[in-house]
Amino acid sequence: MKAAKRAVPMIENYNKYIMEDENLDDLQLKGIHIIQKKDGFKFGVDAVLLANFTKIKRGMKVIDLCSGTGVIPFILAGKSEASNIVGIEIQDEMVDMALRSVKINDMKHKVNFISADLKDIKLMKSIEKAEVITVNPPYKLYNSGILNPKDKTAIARHEICCTLEDVIIASRILLKDNGRLFMVHRPERLADILCLMRKHKIEPKNIRMVHPNTKKAPNIVLIEAQRDGGAFLKWEPPLYVYNDNGDYTEEIDRIYGRI
Amino acid sequence: MKAAKRAVPMIENYNKYIMEDENLDDLQLKGIHIIQKKDGFKFGVDAVLLANFTKIKRGMKVIDLCSGTGVIPFILAGKSEASNIVGIEIQDEMVDMALRSVKINDMKHKVNFISADLKDIKLMKSIEKAEVITVNPPYKLYNSGILNPKDKTAIARHEICCTLEDVIIASRILLKDNGRLFMVHRPERLADILCLMRKHKIEPKNIRMVHPNTKKAPNIVLIEAQRDGGAFLKWEPPLYVYNDNGDYTEEIDRIYGRI
Repeated sequence: MKAAKRAVPMIENYNKYIMEDENLDDLQLKGIHIIQKKDGFKFGVDAVLLANFTKIKRGMKVIDLCSGTGVIPFILAGKSEASNIVGIEIQDEMVDMALRSVKINDMKHKVNFISADLKDIKLMKSIEKAEVITVNPPYKLYNSGILNPKDKTAIARHEICCTLEDVIIASRILLKDNGRLFMVHRPERLADILCLMRKHKIEPKNIRMVHPNTKKAPNIVLIEAQRDGGAFLKWEPPLYVYNDNGDYTEEIDRIYGRI
Repeated sequence: MKAAKRAVPMIENYNKYIMEDENLDDLQLKGIHIIQKKDGFKFGVDAVLLANFTKIKRGMKVIDLCSGTGVIPFILAGKSEASNIVGIEIQDEMVDMALRSVKINDMKHKVNFISADLKDIKLMKSIEKAEVITVNPPYKLYNSGILNPKDKTAIARHEICCTLEDVIIASRILLKDNGRLFMVHRPERLADILCLMRKHKIEPKNIRMVHPNTKKAPNIVLIEAQRDGGAFLKWEPPLYVYNDNGDYTEEIDRIYGRI
């Protein structure tokens, strides 16, 4: 990656907010940084692609579910004109990191995080609704005894604390009328995703498949759905990560802000 | 297209089976021909791609729903070792053409057609079940008053005589335990397809998207589903029809028997 231009990012003395087992990672976007554990779960391409796929108009409120250390809210804060962005995350430690990232980036006016279980329907109903919801949910089914339920990476990757249906039920509650849900997930779960969205009246409207290259099957799916939307599913051209030479495609370079 | 090698195809005096408003069209496959109306609905790329996508083991029975003039049964008769292939079609005139094509190709031992409405549950239950079902259903919703319900092309393209759900209900009845359904349809209907399949316990197992070229969104979807199958949806690499130069891709040339 080329060095990003820093646009007056962090507050003074930001180092006091960073613990010894943490790094401050550069999002390569307007100087925004986020705190991540040196050895823990780190944001990946999924989060970056989802943030890029999400359409937000000026002044909209956004809620990010399963927010982790907050990478999606911070990217959206850099890329969109959302009025405010709230991340909801069940793991207190991650919320604590995300809130310290808010301070470091001096974004209190725009980005906030709530430590909450999205299965808590009463609590969800008490939160102000949003025009846009984003979510990079745990994408693996929790059907294996070998997982440690205290393992934070496992919680982020497997449906331990919430299932896909929990995410969709919470989204239904948190979305304004005709509001949009943007989700990144795995293609092998697409039948689950589409059927659960329909069950809870969030209609799938737009899909973009992400392929490693033109010759390979898709391994990431980006879905836009609308609360009480009409049935018509648009498909976008595929997004390829690598070109035939094995280099990143121009589109990926653009998404990552490298060109 | 290059001229196909004729492998001793048609019976003598086949011309007596062809009416004035009909053509005898070469499938470019082992000398097999089918009768089609000069001005009517003709088989398209959908049928060819579906027949190519369908997996049939030696000795299996196959049923083709919405069979039209029988293009899929005839391609499968040429490409597979199915024990027998039965086409079910609601339009008597098309069944008549298909049955004359059986005579012309001398395929009475392998291919047959039934004039039947697949919504007739009692009749469907009386038909011997199959290991494989293929279907290229009408893919447009019947929600427009401008259609003429007597228009044969409209019946083939729009859900006038049967809906997607009718097709899936009939498939459930006609499939043996764990039998497979192979369907070609439009990507914008994928949520309908996956949700209706699940509703009737025919689990989507495998999807292949067909794109005009690498830069365009998919415009055809090929789906394999299994009666009472377990939930895991595999995605195949995309199939592109044209390459960057605007020529057919090698895979399409191979499917059409041109190389």
